[in-house]
Amino acid sequence: MKKNFLLTPGPTPVPAEVLLAMATPSIHHRTPQFKAIFKEMNENLKYLFQTQNDVFTFACSGTGAMEAAVVNLLSAGDKAICVQGGKFGERWGEICRAYNIDFVPIDVEWGIAVEPEEIAQVLKKHKDAKVVFTTQCETSTGVLNDIKAIAEITKGTDTVLVVDAISSLGGVNLETDSWGVDVVVTGSQKGLMIPPGLAFCSVSKKAQGLVEKAKSPRYYFDFRLSKKALDKSDTAFTPAITLCIGLNEALKMIKRETLEVIFERNRKLARAVRAAMRAMGLKIFAKDPADVVTAVCSPKEVDSDKLVKIMRDEYGVSIAGGQAQLKGKIFRIAQLGYVNEFDLVMGISCLETVLSKMGYKFELGKGIGAFEAELLK
Amino acid sequence: MKKNFLLTPGPTPVPAEVLLAMATPSIHHRTPQFKAIFKEMNENLKYLFQTQNDVFTFACSGTGAMEAAVVNLLSAGDKAICVQGGKFGERWGEICRAYNIDFVPIDVEWGIAVEPEEIAQVLKKHKDAKVVFTTQCETSTGVLNDIKAIAEITKGTDTVLVVDAISSLGGVNLETDSWGVDVVVTGSQKGLMIPPGLAFCSVSKKAQGLVEKAKSPRYYFDFRLSKKALDKSDTAFTPAITLCIGLNEALKMIKRETLEVIFERNRKLARAVRAAMRAMGLKIFAKDPADVVTAVCSPKEVDSDKLVKIMRDEYGVSIAGGQAQLKGKIFRIAQLGYVNEFDLVMGISCLETVLSKMGYKFELGKGIGAFEAELLK
Repeated sequence: MKKNFLLTPGPTPVPAEVLLAMATPSIHHRTPQFKAIFKEMNENLKYLFQTQNDVFTFACSGTGAMEAAVVNLLSAGDKAICVQGGKFGERWGEICRAYNIDFVPIDVEWGIAVEPEEIAQVLKKHKDAKVVFTTQCETSTGVLNDIKAIAEITKGTDTVLVVDAISSLGGVNLETDSWGVDVVVTGSQKGLMIPPGLAFCSVSKKAQGLVEKAKSPRYYFDFRLSKKALDKSDTAFTPAITLCIGLNEALKMIKRETLEVIFERNRKLARAVRAAMRAMGLKIFAKDPADVVTAVCSPKEVDSDKLVKIMRDEYGVSIAGGQAQLKGKIFRIAQLGYVNEFDLVMGISCLETVLSKMGYKFELGKGIGAFEAELLK
Repeated sequence: MKKNFLLTPGPTPVPAEVLLAMATPSIHHRTPQFKAIFKEMNENLKYLFQTQNDVFTFACSGTGAMEAAVVNLLSAGDKAICVQGGKFGERWGEICRAYNIDFVPIDVEWGIAVEPEEIAQVLKKHKDAKVVFTTQCETSTGVLNDIKAIAEITKGTDTVLVVDAISSLGGVNLETDSWGVDVVVTGSQKGLMIPPGLAFCSVSKKAQGLVEKAKSPRYYFDFRLSKKALDKSDTAFTPAITLCIGLNEALKMIKRETLEVIFERNRKLARAVRAAMRAMGLKIFAKDPADVVTAVCSPKEVDSDKLVKIMRDEYGVSIAGGQAQLKGKIFRIAQLGYVNEFDLVMGISCLETVLSKMGYKFELGKGIGAFEAELLK
């Protein structure tokens, strides 16, 4: 009897209540029935984003919403700054390149957070940079960047701050309005607890100013079309109806529990997972770890790709391996979305079992013990 | 006891088997488990598209895939021809405008099919047109264009033919390869019987030639990234996993029934619906009607928007009203996807009931009688 469980940093497990809501008979999107759901969903998205700004919903993956941010804010030849400290930070650069944006990369060593001071320096040199693109949680390395401090830098300037919070929103704190973050991008399959297929952008008034001027060609991702529709609680194009229905249920669950409680749980779980790894003699990869995904250095004798494969194919427990230059070298366990302490106990027990089978020497049960002890504090 | 049922030209009803498949516990997309589903889904998409070409799947609405076709084939300043005979034909023009494509519109009166000869004439005048964009079933008017005849015109030339088959693929015949259609665009929520959120483009070798040269900026919709991923049975970005799982189930149902049987059923049902409308003294709007959606002129005394609203809100039966200049003037009933004769009996009975209540004079039961008689032939 193999049960499958996801401890990956997206997709995350979907609560049965949400799965069942999405399995109800189809409804049409241009009806009062859907409009009521969409309206409630949009209200609750504002709660999630901690914003009064518009939050636009697109049927696409997170990357689509990242592209939406680029094309709606910039024109070919415009200058931007991209913080690149992992696979997803680099994606900002790739999208800018595709749209002929003249971007200044800030290359940060994988595993550490960007120094806000470095952004301030680069911005001083490139005062004409219209946008700073950065990442809150860099999923590929498990690093958390200090968005509050970064927003302090862009706040008083004409430069707009865009944050990829795809794997962090709803998992760690991001106070869009009070910190002064102009555009926050996220996806549906992480902290939002629904399947992939929806992505979102919140857009501040300051960012809206760039939207009017941006000349990058766009249609499906055009914020102007999204805005016109949203003002009537409608969508510019056919929405992914079932995913919106699921999201509405998931957001109600989040609101009932409150963001504060969720953030605190993830904080505790992440601390306990790190304690478990250390008790097993393993090293945490990120110097500035995010509380939603823990990246762990694989022991020398263990190829992390093989570890992930055995855990998944023989035991049904999915964690993530390393990407790009970290392939085979790290594994990543998520504390994100619909995941509680006993899900992680299962994950750590499976990890202990497979590491042991793969020849790594440590005392079985040590990880679980440290995990429990940390949570009992 | 109000039961809700969809007879709209998208979204269409989703079979319970498909809804339940989508409600199973989440799986990760970079796993052998998902890869096997995705591979089978892609094989069966080729059957649906009647093609050996690559079929790219995007998490987006149909419009996203239309935009994908434009940006992957053309550069700003390139010439194209857009057949505009309804709201969706006009969308080709809108997308071309957004990307500074120099497009020649062929404006066709709403309700009639484009004359293939007209396309031939325009193409003769504009030999440098790289692409002809057209629509198979124009959902807004219920018109079917003769794609086979149009493909005959572009076949021997350097011009690539792109067909929006969003509301028709899997509903009426479209022989991508044997007719010589270069790019076929479709969406998930019509003939494919799953919820909205996925869209597709099949791309011929001839079209692939343009993809290499096209300079329109693109990232999320870049066919080159899609191709590279598809060759490894993978996706460039996180796929809409549950929708892919649902699609795989739906495509297996389609393959089991065979396209021929489905096309024949829709043909018969559409003929019977038209007979029913005529028996009730109503006029079919389209001179060249498609067998997937029947557009009907509302009687003078009946505002079709009101009719649709009462049918939906008081009786639970959703049909579609008119769009743009046809608002209030026509209503549309779909014979598409998971809809059989008794679903339509219910729809026609509801229509008879509400038309009668709204003061339109005709003999109750006449429509149903004609519908049954036509099917008994």
